[in-house]
Amino acid sequence: MPFEPQILKRRETARTRLFKVEEMLLRFSNGVERIYERLSRPSHGAVLIVPMLDEDTVLLIREYGAGIEGYHLALPKGACNAGEDRLAAANRELMEEVGYGAHHLEHVKSLSLSPAYMGHAIDVILARDLYEKRLPGDEPEPIEVVPWSLENLPELVARDDFTEGRSLAALYLVRDLLRS
Amino acid sequence: MPFEPQILKRRETARTRLFKVEEMLLRFSNGVERIYERLSRPSHGAVLIVPMLDEDTVLLIREYGAGIEGYHLALPKGACNAGEDRLAAANRELMEEVGYGAHHLEHVKSLSLSPAYMGHAIDVILARDLYEKRLPGDEPEPIEVVPWSLENLPELVARDDFTEGRSLAALYLVRDLLRS
Repeated sequence: MPFEPQILKRRETARTRLFKVEEMLLRFSNGVERIYERLSRPSHGAVLIVPMLDEDTVLLIREYGAGIEGYHLALPKGACNAGEDRLAAANRELMEEVGYGAHHLEHVKSLSLSPAYMGHAIDVILARDLYEKRLPGDEPEPIEVVPWSLENLPELVARDDFTEGRSLAALYLVRDLLRS
Repeated sequence: MPFEPQILKRRETARTRLFKVEEMLLRFSNGVERIYERLSRPSHGAVLIVPMLDEDTVLLIREYGAGIEGYHLALPKGACNAGEDRLAAANRELMEEVGYGAHHLEHVKSLSLSPAYMGHAIDVILARDLYEKRLPGDEPEPIEVVPWSLENLPELVARDDFTEGRSLAALYLVRDLLRS
């Protein structure tokens, strides 16, 4: 593996309410210099929750995605607050979006979004031993909760309204974990 | 499922070399109005390639990711050119990044990046029946190719330098497809 490139310069090229774009001038260990643009990582981390109602039933949500301009199925997720532990953040998001809390929360894997262009990372959290508990969220309309059997993962994969890479990766990860 | 929200207004809030940020004012079917910010989808699509050297060996690449500021393992990927068919784009990227062409290319699934905030989509393409063929790419340094056995997927998952959600999802998808 080559030595890491040196970062010769970095500057912010745009900042909006949600996004911060940076330009970096890199010198690779072979002397080649390149300018890269990337989105900075949000400050406090984020969590993607895999809530298991029983050993085979995962709770998905259906909500509107402004990015893809349509309703879609995915796992619940959200940003951590400042100083908030990721397991606590997962439990809070679960209560807000799905209406359950979890007695058992377990970190599975940290996933990146697009390593070349984005600094974003999200922690996959397996939530088990659920109990009913709802916290008010900030959603514009009620979120529909859709129970799905992990045995029927191929049927979910075949759907056009289930596309998110990280949700798909997390479901496979947990299926393998629970089967092993 | 509720009716799709109406898009009342949209405007560009930032544009850089790689990214375009839009703000949209949405009215949900229950009357609630919200402002959303999102990254627009790049124009011509993108492909993520799963190159199988044999029935069990996938070819990963190790390259520098400016987003995460580090070397990492992932599947080869790239943007389609204007007017370029996605299978042709997959074969071209495979030749540029891995040094192989494929006699057999097959669309597996379209994956989204972050449906709430990003319009990006990438098509997972399974590449089989490979032959040696290299095209010059635009990489700043040679890309290391790392063969990996799909039987050893759990070992790959456990690595800190393999984190990309879409690559992980694509490997599971293809493993299930080849086993079925």
